[in-house]
Amino acid sequence: MSQAKSYAAKSATTPLEPFSFERRTLREDDINIDILYCGVCHSDIHIAESDWGPSIYPVVPGHEIIGRVTEIGNKVSKYKVGDLVGVGCMVDSCQHCSQCEADLEQYCDNGSVGTYGFKDLIDGSITYGGYSDHIVVREKFVLSIPQALDASKAAPLLCAGVTTYSPLRHHGVKAGDKVGVLGMGGLGHMGVKFAKAFGAEVTIFTRSESKVAEAKLQGADHVVVSTDEAQMKASVMSFDYLLDTIPVQHDLNPYLNCLKVDGTHILVGLIEPIEPAVHAANLVLKRRVLTGSLIGGIAETQEVLDFCAKHDIECDAEMISIQDINQAYQRMKQGDVKYRFIIDMKSLKNS
Amino acid sequence: MSQAKSYAAKSATTPLEPFSFERRTLREDDINIDILYCGVCHSDIHIAESDWGPSIYPVVPGHEIIGRVTEIGNKVSKYKVGDLVGVGCMVDSCQHCSQCEADLEQYCDNGSVGTYGFKDLIDGSITYGGYSDHIVVREKFVLSIPQALDASKAAPLLCAGVTTYSPLRHHGVKAGDKVGVLGMGGLGHMGVKFAKAFGAEVTIFTRSESKVAEAKLQGADHVVVSTDEAQMKASVMSFDYLLDTIPVQHDLNPYLNCLKVDGTHILVGLIEPIEPAVHAANLVLKRRVLTGSLIGGIAETQEVLDFCAKHDIECDAEMISIQDINQAYQRMKQGDVKYRFIIDMKSLKNS
Ligand SMILES: [Zn+2]
Ligand SMILES: [Zn+2]
Ligand SMILES: [Zn+2]
Ligand SMILES: [Zn+2]
Repeated sequence: MSQAKSYAAKSATTPLEPFSFERRTLREDDINIDILYCGVCHSDIHIAESDWGPSIYPVVPGHEIIGRVTEIGNKVSKYKVGDLVGVGCMVDSCQHCSQCEADLEQYCDNGSVGTYGFKDLIDGSITYGGYSDHIVVREKFVLSIPQALDASKAAPLLCAGVTTYSPLRHHGVKAGDKVGVLGMGGLGHMGVKFAKAFGAEVTIFTRSESKVAEAKLQGADHVVVSTDEAQMKASVMSFDYLLDTIPVQHDLNPYLNCLKVDGTHILVGLIEPIEPAVHAANLVLKRRVLTGSLIGGIAETQEVLDFCAKHDIECDAEMISIQDINQAYQRMKQGDVKYRFIIDMKSLKNS
Repeated sequence: MSQAKSYAAKSATTPLEPFSFERRTLREDDINIDILYCGVCHSDIHIAESDWGPSIYPVVPGHEIIGRVTEIGNKVSKYKVGDLVGVGCMVDSCQHCSQCEADLEQYCDNGSVGTYGFKDLIDGSITYGGYSDHIVVREKFVLSIPQALDASKAAPLLCAGVTTYSPLRHHGVKAGDKVGVLGMGGLGHMGVKFAKAFGAEVTIFTRSESKVAEAKLQGADHVVVSTDEAQMKASVMSFDYLLDTIPVQHDLNPYLNCLKVDGTHILVGLIEPIEPAVHAANLVLKRRVLTGSLIGGIAETQEVLDFCAKHDIECDAEMISIQDINQAYQRMKQGDVKYRFIIDMKSLKNS
């Protein structure tokens, strides 16, 4: 066992604060990682505040982890001490169901183990995430960080990156396709980068005229102000895909109408439930598809990292200290971040 | 012009009654068809009663039409007098949009022309359907009825048939797939036949224990009573496809949960709007697909007829006289039909 420093939420209503706990002794296929950087995901806030049902406290959030290997178990073969590695949203899964066998651990029939707030499959302990100085993770769930990536900016690729990359790949987005991206946050801006990299013509939908210039800066070919009826009307039947990263409930119907026949609307957020109600006609009369997607498997997460290294794609991020985390949460709730906070975990040494 | 006898709804609240009108003089690509049989579709009732918005009265319903060619325009090449032919849900479309060019006239960007209650693209007159003694239709929208089909039972293939065949084909249902069919009416029972013909293992979902035996008679391999929690729980994560023919609002969530990862829920009815609300988690967490499908194109409608001739598939139907149509509507509203009414149009001569 090793003593870990971290920041944790002790309840749904109290700010994150310093917290010490024991990391498990390395198992034979475990890797110990000293954490250098950790991205801040909206899920961190949702779990810290029990937005998705009661969380198990204390919650140590963080599932966009970049660090360096400091110790390896007896049977670890893929990594050695000193390697730069990453850990994303999952730290384990059953490894024998058909989903795991298809490299889709995120859909594991027996339930994958989240990086924080889940029960470890072997000893039943609760997982603690990346807002800590080190983490112990099964080799299979550790990613290799390519040298060409800037380690200080790579963290968000492990959640925001793969969450948007995976559905665009799964549905085969390709050159010439028209892709609309809904939402301009951490997920949305990565979605724009990937869709562009795949050769698509990309439109950002934003609610506010004031964000048009910013949307263009994100690399979009076009911008549609969704509150402008004329612009929405002009967009009807125009898109092959809509990548919907809006994190709050919203009316899907005007967006569905922007899809061509056989167009696909992809949800990556849990906007529960989908209200206002979807009109069946918007699906049936044009054979449109409404679907969702959850992060990505381990192999695909590695693919994202390699793809970003090759194509020089990185997340736009603002570096913070762990002591600023509660303020960062407030700013994220107000949409005041371009486009991801990354915690420099060196700062934890000072707390 | 030629005088036509028919049955029509004169308003949303009055029963269908005899009605005479003029069919247009044949255009060069028109075919005149003496109608032998006409299937009775739920849409007939919905349009007659203005359920989907105000209809244009009088409404002469009927879009499952079997008849014989009695006259052809100058430029008609595909059919000759005496041929047994069919007309389905559409009688025209723009013929130059990308959908029409892809044999998907039902999704015509400029709007396909329904067999009744729509405006003719050339003279703007309102189309009148198959509850009449003859009909004049553009050659391109006339189907050939294979000799091997029983003409007296083929009519429902033109709507109920293609409506269920098309999505199963589009999504590539094949041997070994597990398909659930929701609803046991005209559409549902055809869906079972097609899914079985494609080699799938088919389960009928029914609300009532009392319908289990009947469901088995329809050829289903299994029956799930959807009101039985234990049976629904045992069905979770089991299906590749669900063909949802339920014509009224219902909660999709318990059914979505019966789909495997990447499973597809296909709506063929306009259950407006989709309430209770769909839970995004039921899509996102298993990458499931919710989609819809509308009838089928002309080429595919011909494919259905040929497929049914080859595989000896026919609709289970009850023959009625046109004079019984209002009673038939009442029985359909009560679900009291196995599984389609077909009007023997000879009966119209007596009215
Ligand atoms: Zn995340
Ligand atoms: Zn598994
Ligand atoms: Zn119909
Ligand atoms: Zn067209």
